[in-house]
Amino acid sequence: MTILGEQIIGHAVAKGTNGELKGLDAATGQAIEPAFGGASLADLDRACALADEAFDAYRETSLEARAAFLEAIADEILALGDELIERCCQESGLPRPRIEGERGRTMGQLKMFAGVLRDGGFLDARVDPAMPDRKPMARVDLRLRNIGLGPVAVFGASNFPLAFSVAGGDTASALAAGCPVVAKAHSAHPGTSELVGRAVLKAAQRCGMPEGVFSLLFGTGREIGQGLVADHRIKAVGFTGSRAGGTALMKVAAARPEPIPVYAEMSSINPVILFPAALAAHAAATGKAFAGSLTLGAGQFCTNPGLVLAVEGPDLDAFVAAASEALSAMPAAVMLTPGIHKAYADGVAAIESHDAVKTVAKGQAGGELRGQAALFRVSATDFLAHPELQDEVFGAASIVIACRDEAELHKVVRSLEGQLTAAIHIEEGDHEAAKAMLPLLERKVGRILVNGFGTGVEVGHAMVHGGPYPSTADGRSTSVGSKAIERFLRPVSYQDVPDALLPDALKDANPLGLWRRHDGKLVAPKG
Amino acid sequence: MTILGEQIIGHAVAKGTNGELKGLDAATGQAIEPAFGGASLADLDRACALADEAFDAYRETSLEARAAFLEAIADEILALGDELIERCCQESGLPRPRIEGERGRTMGQLKMFAGVLRDGGFLDARVDPAMPDRKPMARVDLRLRNIGLGPVAVFGASNFPLAFSVAGGDTASALAAGCPVVAKAHSAHPGTSELVGRAVLKAAQRCGMPEGVFSLLFGTGREIGQGLVADHRIKAVGFTGSRAGGTALMKVAAARPEPIPVYAEMSSINPVILFPAALAAHAAATGKAFAGSLTLGAGQFCTNPGLVLAVEGPDLDAFVAAASEALSAMPAAVMLTPGIHKAYADGVAAIESHDAVKTVAKGQAGGELRGQAALFRVSATDFLAHPELQDEVFGAASIVIACRDEAELHKVVRSLEGQLTAAIHIEEGDHEAAKAMLPLLERKVGRILVNGFGTGVEVGHAMVHGGPYPSTADGRSTSVGSKAIERFLRPVSYQDVPDALLPDALKDANPLGLWRRHDGKLVAPKG
Repeated sequence: MTILGEQIIGHAVAKGTNGELKGLDAATGQAIEPAFGGASLADLDRACALADEAFDAYRETSLEARAAFLEAIADEILALGDELIERCCQESGLPRPRIEGERGRTMGQLKMFAGVLRDGGFLDARVDPAMPDRKPMARVDLRLRNIGLGPVAVFGASNFPLAFSVAGGDTASALAAGCPVVAKAHSAHPGTSELVGRAVLKAAQRCGMPEGVFSLLFGTGREIGQGLVADHRIKAVGFTGSRAGGTALMKVAAARPEPIPVYAEMSSINPVILFPAALAAHAAATGKAFAGSLTLGAGQFCTNPGLVLAVEGPDLDAFVAAASEALSAMPAAVMLTPGIHKAYADGVAAIESHDAVKTVAKGQAGGELRGQAALFRVSATDFLAHPELQDEVFGAASIVIACRDEAELHKVVRSLEGQLTAAIHIEEGDHEAAKAMLPLLERKVGRILVNGFGTGVEVGHAMVHGGPYPSTADGRSTSVGSKAIERFLRPVSYQDVPDALLPDALKDANPLGLWRRHDGKLVAPKG
Repeated sequence: MTILGEQIIGHAVAKGTNGELKGLDAATGQAIEPAFGGASLADLDRACALADEAFDAYRETSLEARAAFLEAIADEILALGDELIERCCQESGLPRPRIEGERGRTMGQLKMFAGVLRDGGFLDARVDPAMPDRKPMARVDLRLRNIGLGPVAVFGASNFPLAFSVAGGDTASALAAGCPVVAKAHSAHPGTSELVGRAVLKAAQRCGMPEGVFSLLFGTGREIGQGLVADHRIKAVGFTGSRAGGTALMKVAAARPEPIPVYAEMSSINPVILFPAALAAHAAATGKAFAGSLTLGAGQFCTNPGLVLAVEGPDLDAFVAAASEALSAMPAAVMLTPGIHKAYADGVAAIESHDAVKTVAKGQAGGELRGQAALFRVSATDFLAHPELQDEVFGAASIVIACRDEAELHKVVRSLEGQLTAAIHIEEGDHEAAKAMLPLLERKVGRILVNGFGTGVEVGHAMVHGGPYPSTADGRSTSVGSKAIERFLRPVSYQDVPDALLPDALKDANPLGLWRRHDGKLVAPKG
């Protein structure tokens, strides 16, 4: 397979004619051939029309057929071989092991959703049988299942060119839910996007899926992205990116004649709270581990630990010293795009020049386009007085907040915006204090973790990668893990519908072998 | 108990001082004593502060304690006795059997959610155990449960003074989810609201629930309602009312620094589709039954059949004739408020004077404040050309759309906005045609029902009372039935949290005896 700069609209693979864009080598900033053709509004219209047409047929494919389709996508991605890995490394500046790992993660997500489909629990099938003899009124027969919302717009993320992009978590969960996907490639990795898009198309054709179940568009400006969210056939949006980008899409979605849900994962600084006993026991080791988490992938994770909170004292100083020592040795790292590098450098400079902030350590200086890690320290009082210090600086920068006491620590946590994660470092002796903190953290974050860091987001059934606004647009949802399928579903109820007309999930004989709720009680499939 | 015109803020019951409002006798339009004091912004602030303070304690009450609280509310409502029934009939103009039935429904909802709590399935407890030996990386221990979103604002509905108001479905599901409720009474039934509010307070105190778990405010203008939605401590909104009212609250919620979900049930005209074989077999009987459904409760149901669709011909004419005959005999009925009566009369007059529309029947003319039923007929071509005919006219008015053929019928259905319900009338011979229509209906509505009418919304586990915009603000949700609890929940994930600090729902020993998902598979509680 070769990268041709082509978009995918249903079965048609061709170069767009509305302007051009090129991928950049992240390490050098040099453009990479070929150029990608931007989609026109007519292309957008055609992709949405095909998605809409495909929806009814696609959502009634059998669970097994849809599972096989997702597995076929995983296989086709693997079959892209080294061309994918090399192109992806070049476009993202991320090292080969990371990209190979991310490919495995992407395939794993697709296979996990195949399992979710075979399990069928996401349908939430319910049967409340008729009671013709109920007094004073007979009870009707009522059944419920979830169906897909409709065509979904998926925006690729810059920082996960595979796992959160063209065939990433949003696409996998939307396709699993029975929703066709119109993907908009991220301009940071168009070549990676085309390769993966071709893999999805190949799988769709091999599995006999209806045309339009998947399309992939490139956009040279904001027109295509905003047009996609505004299109009346699109019924939900998956996005991972900046707060400005996410809130702009939320506005477009809310202004539609029919507003639609936007699942935007936007910004998070992921507080790490060091409790006294833990800090006394492992200040140095935790400091070193923290520096490792902070600089992983050049700090370009949504769950990067951008804030450290602890009560001031010699143990915190020891943590800072160890973190500083480790950080000082960290080489500068290529960042994803020149734009991200610039935003990072500007963000660091702003904190550095902030009157209230002390710079305690910096990583090795690097060449152009390389991010230099940075660690800052500020008193809790000053942090509370300067809400701008809560703004995410995307990259390997973090601020240590020194609190006078536990009460002030609570005050700082209470002042935080919604976050994806909070990490607490505790020992047995901290349990009471942690217990007092947990209710507050539950209100603020989607995932609470102990004695670790938020980087490393396990793809599983109990993962929540989401959180209250502004970490995401909709804290009722997760973008990682099997529960992500729920974001693209809505319930439909069937009253007195003859068995022959009921969907298989709700027929008397339970041909899909589902767990169902009968009058509210879970009943196992017979068999 | 006596009605004193008092609001409830936590444990404090006192008359608001920000203006006054009085209930009206729906049948006469005369004011009823006493006057109710409107809430000030300070009252609003206090109610929200108490709700916020109550949240952590309330959401960690045991499932059994919360279930008992809901049951106690039901008991206290019943204990209000005839004073409630009489006041409610007077304020709403609805007949006594209806209000007694609605009281039963309200109590039934509370008790259903008590059952939902004891079942515990809504927590969606999940455990992905650690795998310390997994290669290349150890797997963390990851657990998930749902928690409440936070304090919820509930707006009472005019047309269900009990079942969709102060202790109605939204309050019951929010309280079940662990969310404190700040209710805003509907100005159409302040006396009913105060009585029910006192019952909730009594139950809360009897059950030892934290102060602030429930408050009830009266508002003399829009300030309190909009202020409630804008308050930063409110995390979700339940509303049943007009499209204008619902979209206004959606705008307030979207404009907050932290946008929140609004569950607004707004407008629906609930198409009834008569298929040929069914029409041939039962035109007259269906016409008569339709007239009964249309005029039930003066037509003041969200699920009122405001649109009838069929292919033109003698069978449709026979249906119209039978419906007209039945309708002509229907007495005019007292409507809920003078405002609703006026809006209905204006809406009917607008359709009546519409060039494209023929008036085929009217009910008996009535006195002041009484709604006169009305049936209209229009060709599908004209209906398609005049989208304003899709606007809901709240009351006992309906339009028959005569289609040239099945294709035109599909075209009309495709043109419809989102709806709560669609009813199809079919016989065996219609099954193929119905099958072809179902996917379209699934996209448009929340509930599909066969050979009946949408009025009569069963409270059960398989009910969806919701639907795509603009029937509701959020088609992913239902406001009736046990699945309504999901609207007020969000998932939180716990990583490597020691058993002693885990919520009971996720502890190794499963002390709550929950069904849980282990690595994605449902596992029964031991015992």
